[in-house]
Amino acid sequence: MAELETFPNPNPGRNYTILHVNPEFTSVCPKTGLPDFATIELEYIPGDTCIELKSLKYYYLDFRNKGIFYEAVTNAMLDDLVAACNPRWMRVTGRFAARGGISSVITAETGSRP
Amino acid sequence: MAELETFPNPNPGRNYTILHVNPEFTSVCPKTGLPDFATIELEYIPGDTCIELKSLKYYYLDFRNKGIFYEAVTNAMLDDLVAACNPRWMRVTGRFAARGGISSVITAETGSRP
Amino acid sequence: MAELETFPNPNPGRNYTILHVNPEFTSVCPKTGLPDFATIELEYIPGDTCIELKSLKYYYLDFRNKGIFYEAVTNAMLDDLVAACNPRWMRVTGRFAARGGISSVITAETGSRP
Amino acid sequence: MAELETFPNPNPGRNYTILHVNPEFTSVCPKTGLPDFATIELEYIPGDTCIELKSLKYYYLDFRNKGIFYEAVTNAMLDDLVAACNPRWMRVTGRFAARGGISSVITAETGSRP
Amino acid sequence: MAELETFPNPNPGRNYTILHVNPEFTSVCPKTGLPDFATIELEYIPGDTCIELKSLKYYYLDFRNKGIFYEAVTNAMLDDLVAACNPRWMRVTGRFAARGGISSVITAETGSRP
Amino acid sequence: MAELETFPNPNPGRNYTILHVNPEFTSVCPKTGLPDFATIELEYIPGDTCIELKSLKYYYLDFRNKGIFYEAVTNAMLDDLVAACNPRWMRVTGRFAARGGISSVITAETGSRP
Amino acid sequence: MAELETFPNPNPGRNYTILHVNPEFTSVCPKTGLPDFATIELEYIPGDTCIELKSLKYYYLDFRNKGIFYEAVTNAMLDDLVAACNPRWMRVTGRFAARGGISSVITAETGSRP
Amino acid sequence: MAELETFPNPNPGRNYTILHVNPEFTSVCPKTGLPDFATIELEYIPGDTCIELKSLKYYYLDFRNKGIFYEAVTNAMLDDLVAACNPRWMRVTGRFAARGGISSVITAETGSRP
Amino acid sequence: MAELETFPNPNPGRNYTILHVNPEFTSVCPKTGLPDFATIELEYIPGDTCIELKSLKYYYLDFRNKGIFYEAVTNAMLDDLVAACNPRWMRVTGRFAARGGISSVITAETGSRP
Amino acid sequence: MAELETFPNPNPGRNYTILHVNPEFTSVCPKTGLPDFATIELEYIPGDTCIELKSLKYYYLDFRNKGIFYEAVTNAMLDDLVAACNPRWMRVTGRFAARGGISSVITAETGSRP
Repeated sequence: MAELETFPNPNPGRNYTILHVNPEFTSVCPKTGLPDFATIELEYIPGDTCIELKSLKYYYLDFRNKGIFYEAVTNAMLDDLVAACNPRWMRVTGRFAARGGISSVITAETGSRP
Repeated sequence: MAELETFPNPNPGRNYTILHVNPEFTSVCPKTGLPDFATIELEYIPGDTCIELKSLKYYYLDFRNKGIFYEAVTNAMLDDLVAACNPRWMRVTGRFAARGGISSVITAETGSRP
Repeated sequence: MAELETFPNPNPGRNYTILHVNPEFTSVCPKTGLPDFATIELEYIPGDTCIELKSLKYYYLDFRNKGIFYEAVTNAMLDDLVAACNPRWMRVTGRFAARGGISSVITAETGSRP
Repeated sequence: MAELETFPNPNPGRNYTILHVNPEFTSVCPKTGLPDFATIELEYIPGDTCIELKSLKYYYLDFRNKGIFYEAVTNAMLDDLVAACNPRWMRVTGRFAARGGISSVITAETGSRP
Repeated sequence: MAELETFPNPNPGRNYTILHVNPEFTSVCPKTGLPDFATIELEYIPGDTCIELKSLKYYYLDFRNKGIFYEAVTNAMLDDLVAACNPRWMRVTGRFAARGGISSVITAETGSRP
Repeated sequence: MAELETFPNPNPGRNYTILHVNPEFTSVCPKTGLPDFATIELEYIPGDTCIELKSLKYYYLDFRNKGIFYEAVTNAMLDDLVAACNPRWMRVTGRFAARGGISSVITAETGSRP
Repeated sequence: MAELETFPNPNPGRNYTILHVNPEFTSVCPKTGLPDFATIELEYIPGDTCIELKSLKYYYLDFRNKGIFYEAVTNAMLDDLVAACNPRWMRVTGRFAARGGISSVITAETGSRP
Repeated sequence: MAELETFPNPNPGRNYTILHVNPEFTSVCPKTGLPDFATIELEYIPGDTCIELKSLKYYYLDFRNKGIFYEAVTNAMLDDLVAACNPRWMRVTGRFAARGGISSVITAETGSRP
Repeated sequence: MAELETFPNPNPGRNYTILHVNPEFTSVCPKTGLPDFATIELEYIPGDTCIELKSLKYYYLDFRNKGIFYEAVTNAMLDDLVAACNPRWMRVTGRFAARGGISSVITAETGSRP
Repeated sequence: MAELETFPNPNPGRNYTILHVNPEFTSVCPKTGLPDFATIELEYIPGDTCIELKSLKYYYLDFRNKGIFYEAVTNAMLDDLVAACNPRWMRVTGRFAARGGISSVITAETGSRP
């Protein structure tokens, strides 16, 4: 996977929120081999570091040809992003386009918001 | 930087709110040298002084050719504006246009609203 | 200034609210001499008297060629209107059209709503 | 009246259109002395010169305290603007806010569009 | 009936259009004695004179307690307004609120638009 | 059936249009005995007489318990209304609410509009 | 298939239009065996007979478990409906919900509208 | 590339239109190697054969990791689809998501619609 | 200025249209030195070459700190883009954000669309 | 009246809600003999039985030619429906179309919702 880069939080003394919305996420269904499409929302309160945006984009791009279920990819992203920047709080929401007529939203977060 | 001017709060005896919305903010990405575009929302309850609007406009204009990250610019504006007018409460929200397909919203404030 | 006239509250035994919205307010910027345009919302719970509507219109008209800042005019209107009718609660909101690309909303009220 | 300034049409060899929309026009009713409010739309194909925008703004401002009927002001503006820049085609539309419950739209132009 | 006043067309040398929209028209049904409500749209190209707006308002007001059918009132207004100002073209549209569950629109004009 | 009353066209010298919209029409399906619901739009240019609105309402009401197909009722209304007032042009549109999940629109008119 | 019943056109002397909209059509994909969903719009000018609505509903229902392509079903319906009622003009539009992320609209008609 | 399959046009004797809308198209920018996202609209009047929908989906999927410009991909799809089914008329529209802040729409068709 | 790059039109044998929309254009007012903001729409039918998108972005960026009027910049862009790619037809529309309360739209094109 | 049929509640161990919305209710005004139109909303938490839907439809149909006031019909339906199925809670809302320009909503329920 592309490495998630970080940079020092310019204001670690303050609890402030960062929201990144990516409407162009795509991965592959491990069962059918067909592509999935989603909007990924990442919201967090940074600790000592922030996620660098370009590396986040390349991180998302690495799922393009990877076979992975909706639930797995949403949780994996939360795990990877928490590991990369150790935030005070983080939530990842995946809004997946309809398959077989059914659309899905997966939401995972690290406990309650400070 | 352009100096943020203030004028005496005409009603310091009252907690009232001021909201300034600037949909024409632009700065430069420090990594790529390309411009960023944002809507900046400034909301505050003034203490002894208020931010003068024309100086606020020139303050924002000074970021036009400055290389700075979303998180840094949002927090820097909060710091500068708090230093300039010492408000009872203030919040700065930066809504940044999509880059690499990802749009971002950064929100920073000084504690809870009275 | 035009005098704000009042008439007796027909139901002083009840806490009810009155809202007057004026989308045609204009005053003058004391710095540039150029006109400002705003929508003024006046909401209140009357005490013994109510604001007479025609006198309110002439009161607003008196600001047409007066140089005054957003914050001052919003608070001055709240002060004048409170003095004129002594309401149980009152809020004045000024929504000012963009100047230098920045639009502003000033909100002042007399404590919390009963 | 403020003088309408012009500048040389940068492309007189081409028929292209210019539209200026001013939602902040105000004048005075000659009968009642009360203010009128309007959105003024100016659309034209320039000849040798173009209307300079700041002088247009000051031209509009000169009507602020002038008593003049809707029909007269719309036609007067068309006459003044034609005289100032001698366009190949021009249309002025005044959309006046309701008075006595009646709203009005006046449209004047110089023949048909090339 | 209130007299429809006119004033000299400030630009008789030009074919331009005037539209007055009155959403507050009311008359009386001659059969039931109950009030009718309508929006009246008056659009015309003036000849030597224009309809004065305040007298138009009082003209409309005179129908308040008059019993008259939709078709008659729309045509009568066209006749009266044509007689008053001798326009180059005129159209009157009456949009009447539902009665007995049925809403009605009556449109009358003087030939085709120049 | 209730008689369709007419009154003399107040302006037979002019081709003007009349539109009556009735969203509360109901009749009965001749096959199932169950009620049908429709919005009926009647638009016409009167000749010597106009349809009186109250009699039109009672005319519509007479279909309330009558078994008749969509196509028949729309054409029958056109025939009856033409017979009653001999218009220069007339169109009847029936917009019927869904039955068995299928909604229907029937449109009939007397040639082309003058 | 269920038989499409007709009834005599109540006004064969007039060219009028009939529109039936069925948002509840479902058939089966002949390749995957999975259900398809569509809105079917049927619009026609009847000749000597009209399509009876209940038989139309049962006709549509007969496709529920039938494997058939979008293009075939739309044209087959046009053929069957033309055969059943011999209209002066007819158009069938099938608006099919997305399959594999792709939505489809098929439109077939019998020449141009009279 | 995946082969575009066709099936016999069920009604070659009739000019009817087929529209397929795919909001989940993605390819790769040949300059940057980064993914592009688009909605592809395919509209055509079939000749002897129709495009089979599942093979169309796989045809689109084959662009997923292919480097190709907007203009080339839109025209290539038109060429491939014309070659595959020899339609009487066809149009392909590609609506591409913003890159570097600029969004693009490319439209190509085979002459005018019959 | 940044050079506008082109690439060979992949289908010169076909008249097809290309639309690029850039909501992030900014230049500088030559009178006040303050920034202007606009959405630029470029639509054209290519001849032998197409405008390369990244070079278009850099071309637009070169106006960021350049003093130029609305009319001049819109026409200059049309001239530069025509010179760069010699299209069969081209139109440039600049939608400029309000200055002094007045917003502007400038539209220039090369004759009529083939 | 048509008999309201019921069937055993499949989950009496759980408090769940059922909502039936009927936009096609019509009855007759006892004063004027003219029809009233309403949307009837029935919401309840079933006890041991549920209302059977077809019998509910016929129950509503029985009001078609019955003279009864808004308030009476809404309360009568609540009484009948409570008697038929003995729910844990029930509310009936009648939204009646405007008469004399006034629309009405009547809401009746059996105590507070569990």
